[in-house]
Amino acid sequence: MKVKVVTKILEANERIALENRRLFDKSGVYVINLMSGPGAGKTSILEKTLSQAAGLRIGVIEGDIAGSDDAERIEQCGAPVVQINTGGACHLDANMIYEVLGELPLQDLNLLFIENVGNLVCPAEFKVGEDIKVMVLSIAEGHDKPLKYPLMFQESSALLLNKMDLAPYLDVDIEKIRRDALSLNPKLKIFEVSCKTGQGLPEWIDWLKETIMKR
Amino acid sequence: MKVKVVTKILEANERIALENRRLFDKSGVYVINLMSGPGAGKTSILEKTLSQAAGLRIGVIEGDIAGSDDAERIEQCGAPVVQINTGGACHLDANMIYEVLGELPLQDLNLLFIENVGNLVCPAEFKVGEDIKVMVLSIAEGHDKPLKYPLMFQESSALLLNKMDLAPYLDVDIEKIRRDALSLNPKLKIFEVSCKTGQGLPEWIDWLKETIMKR
Repeated sequence: MKVKVVTKILEANERIALENRRLFDKSGVYVINLMSGPGAGKTSILEKTLSQAAGLRIGVIEGDIAGSDDAERIEQCGAPVVQINTGGACHLDANMIYEVLGELPLQDLNLLFIENVGNLVCPAEFKVGEDIKVMVLSIAEGHDKPLKYPLMFQESSALLLNKMDLAPYLDVDIEKIRRDALSLNPKLKIFEVSCKTGQGLPEWIDWLKETIMKR
Repeated sequence: MKVKVVTKILEANERIALENRRLFDKSGVYVINLMSGPGAGKTSILEKTLSQAAGLRIGVIEGDIAGSDDAERIEQCGAPVVQINTGGACHLDANMIYEVLGELPLQDLNLLFIENVGNLVCPAEFKVGEDIKVMVLSIAEGHDKPLKYPLMFQESSALLLNKMDLAPYLDVDIEKIRRDALSLNPKLKIFEVSCKTGQGLPEWIDWLKETIMKR
């Protein structure tokens, strides 16, 4: 078996991310870049977080290739939301965020979630001006994901292992996910959650509040 | 709610894809670009296909950001395989394929699978010289995927709905997936499969053989 390594080419968008950062700091809003592969449950976790995180004033930027399903779901929760359609691009970049910041009442918020395009690769490479990155992995995706998609695990401050209610029906080794993820990023905070049963959501929300307060 | 559309920038790699195409034609090998989001089960489907598709001489190119787990799994099946590590890039492009073609016994094969990086977005945008694209969707990813990631459904000739064994434990509307996918691509051939129970695999393999024969 032969293994070939191809060098990657990355666009820099650091300057605009820093400009976003300046605007977030001015408004006193904490910003989380929420990432996962497709269908891992980011929007469901946001819905639960919006309904259960009493005391937090949360806004959301939704990123999708096409459609506004996710923004409509967030709007139902009563939160201010803007939908970005990337028109094909597989991740949000700092400039896309910069263009929509005027549409949100940043001064009234203490937390802004930026829900990235469902993609376990590119979103981890592009800073948008966030304080931290948080990732979601559906346990139905299998236990080989940390070692195959290392960057997102390395870049994230917290990992939500979602759809834990499916564990009895999957051949998935949760301990291997934990072990491999922590080998890539020993500081990673890991939550086992289910939006169906509610498992782990209170712990996630407590951590979220603590993280915002102690920044 | 505001919706903003950002224009995408695509690199062209058509010329190299055509060069690959010429080499495939010369060797008489049929080429399938196999795509999905992370953890949908592409490698498991290849394992089953390799063991059940009697009479086909199949080779595999594995594409991953990092690691060679998938190529090792394919090698266990006795098929010629090359692993490409993209070093961060979220899709295979024609040049990556061109660089490894010398490592495979193309003349001895009648079918080459190119297993793309697990990503529901970018792989659909980059031709690698394939005859057709085939995509896998794990039903655990949810029924909103066709409308949120339309290009891959439009570009594919066949869609394998995998992990059908999980259907009783998911709130997933399989008919909606079928309806939306067919609205995007009326010619799409859809198979409901499970690598755990074997459901649908004979139909998939029969279709594969017919497709190769009638090209």
